Amino acid sequence: MLENMKNRRTIRKYTTQDIPDALLNELLEVAARASNTGNMQLYSVVITRDKANKEKLAPAHFNQPMITAAPVVLTFCADANRFVKWAELRDAVAGFDNFQTFIASTIDAMLFAQSFCTAAEEKGLGICYLGTTAYNADKIIDALSLPRLVVPIVTVTVGYPDGMPEQVERLPLGAVVHQEVYTDYTSASIDALYHDKEELEVNKQFVRENDKKTLAQVFTDVRYTKANNEYFSDVLLKVLKGQGFL
Amino acid sequence: MLENMKNRRTIRKYTTQDIPDALLNELLEVAARASNTGNMQLYSVVITRDKANKEKLAPAHFNQPMITAAPVVLTFCADANRFVKWAELRDAVAGFDNFQTFIASTIDAMLFAQSFCTAAEEKGLGICYLGTTAYNADKIIDALSLPRLVVPIVTVTVGYPDGMPEQVERLPLGAVVHQEVYTDYTSASIDALYHDKEELEVNKQFVRENDKKTLAQVFTDVRYTKANNEYFSDVLLKVLKGQGFL
Repeated sequence: MLENMKNRRTIRKYTTQDIPDALLNELLEVAARASNTGNMQLYSVVITRDKANKEKLAPAHFNQPMITAAPVVLTFCADANRFVKWAELRDAVAGFDNFQTFIASTIDAMLFAQSFCTAAEEKGLGICYLGTTAYNADKIIDALSLPRLVVPIVTVTVGYPDGMPEQVERLPLGAVVHQEVYTDYTSASIDALYHDKEELEVNKQFVRENDKKTLAQVFTDVRYTKANNEYFSDVLLKVLKGQGFL
Repeated sequence: MLENMKNRRTIRKYTTQDIPDALLNELLEVAARASNTGNMQLYSVVITRDKANKEKLAPAHFNQPMITAAPVVLTFCADANRFVKWAELRDAVAGFDNFQTFIASTIDAMLFAQSFCTAAEEKGLGICYLGTTAYNADKIIDALSLPRLVVPIVTVTVGYPDGMPEQVERLPLGAVVHQEVYTDYTSASIDALYHDKEELEVNKQFVRENDKKTLAQVFTDVRYTKANNEYFSDVLLKVLKGQGFL
């Protein structure tokens, strides 16, 4: 299994083979064994298989083709709603409409999602995470009828891989690991840690295609711009207020 | 491997056996293959092995004994600092000091953490997540010298299991899964979904020990009180401002 985890790739193209309900449920059962906050399980997942419903979700994901092409789309949500409803019915007053609960729920949702993905890959499925969910949470709330105290965090498309793309690079482990205390980066350490990434032909190509001078500029000027980050931060903060977490 | 994931338990007691650096690094390498936002790897992990440093962290985790008893303590952080430093050195202006980047970084850190935990358990190690990290992020920032744009999200203690506790219950899968759209809970569905949990002898015992009338009250009145949630929400929001994410 460590070999599978080590060799994994994100899969964006799927065959037309469907995923049986029994398999999907088995994987979700496994995923539910992931750690969570105080065993409150502050998460939910919405399963989208219906074509019309995928098409409703697609614009919120900037029409990335995986949404409509994958047999299964999973929207993982931070969810304090179920817990609070339970508390209300049990003479208990939950003070869960706050930011700390949002973070706890987000952590729960992510551990559940990632365990699902690892289990799915072990069974020969391929997955792709879509970060667009946190950008357009408002639209996804509408499309999936999410109530107060539920916020979508990530979407995962799942299916049987159609082809096996090259594995993408990672920074050397030393880039993300700190011993005992955080050792801040210097120009020299940044140069060393990013050297191989910057020298990769596929990344040089990426710089040329985007008509930029450096790889970093592709991220800051094209993919994750300040304007977009700030715009979608406002949207998300409004969503947290609207859903009762802020 | 699915069997291991299905049978997993949180491990809070560890033998004195240490974890070799080679094994820890292998597990972190595997974990770094987890999906992340745009391959920016917006996370870091601080490894604490030193006894004095564990003792420095312990109060931030309300002195839960796992911190000082585990051979290895891992603090997983949302980290946009490394990326921004790289961008600055490459003529790129990163607009990453905002809430959306915090959420992307938190997601990255969680997927990395959870893949680490699955890999560690596959190798016979036991892990425990500590949610106290998001409560006392300010104290952990001090203890680990975390710079601007770095926020600790969860802590994981790791070691070889000393004993195997009972597996704790989970809600039936139907409690967390929604088909196509979110179907909100009714009194009847809540009663059905929480029935087995509430009838468990260990949970009834838990209610008696805490001198409460319902299991939900143990959570709302003792473990996750409104006052604490609100107090620690303020702390965390201040931390996000202080670290440049808000």
